[in-house]
Amino acid sequence: MNDESIVYIGSKPPMTYVMAVLTAFNKMGADRVSLKARGQAISSAVDVAEICRNRFLSDLERPVIEISTEELESEQGGKRNVSTMTIVLSKAGKPAAAEAKPRAKKAKAEEKKEEA
Amino acid sequence: MNDESIVYIGSKPPMTYVMAVLTAFNKMGADRVSLKARGQAISSAVDVAEICRNRFLSDLERPVIEISTEELESEQGGKRNVSTMTIVLSKAGKPAAAEAKPRAKKAKAEEKKEEA
Repeated sequence: MNDESIVYIGSKPPMTYVMAVLTAFNKMGADRVSLKARGQAISSAVDVAEICRNRFLSDLERPVIEISTEELESEQGGKRNVSTMTIVLSKAGKPAAAEAKPRAKKAKAEEKKEEA
Repeated sequence: MNDESIVYIGSKPPMTYVMAVLTAFNKMGADRVSLKARGQAISSAVDVAEICRNRFLSDLERPVIEISTEELESEQGGKRNVSTMTIVLSKAGKPAAAEAKPRAKKAKAEEKKEEA
């Protein structure tokens, strides 16, 4: 089950994440790579998707994009809403079935790892 | 032909644009409102869409989202690429036909007006 990968977008330069996407497609043999981002990183996720599509991967389907909202607890104990986005990049012939799911809470630990 | 509106997202607080969207739907009778944004404003556009959907307009279709790249000339004469995004919000029963077009060059003048 190595055909789907997730890349969490943070505050590093876009090319860092572009490399992660290329690795997933080329070395790990993924058919689909999901870019997940929250808040300000959403703009960066779009940059990453566009760089991949225009410069490195010409055989991608039109990306499937989902947006959603997550409730975060702030340090003062209050709650605030944060927008999230998932961009699914798929190889030609392996279209995503609009199945980008809202980001799970427990994905957080994983994110730390990928951004490290 | 008043059934489609465009709101250009800039650097103002999201609620400014939420109001513009609500006005387009409720006062101007639009069936569809497109949010257009470039660069860092993309995150803000997602916030605007999510606030509209979750707080004010419960009868919207799942938004259709397109991303693209535009080439801008910098002041030094060089060129740089900027990511763009269009989010189409549609009333229930009036789905957007994935027809979000890349933002036209001449849209710029219009944008100034709407952001003013």
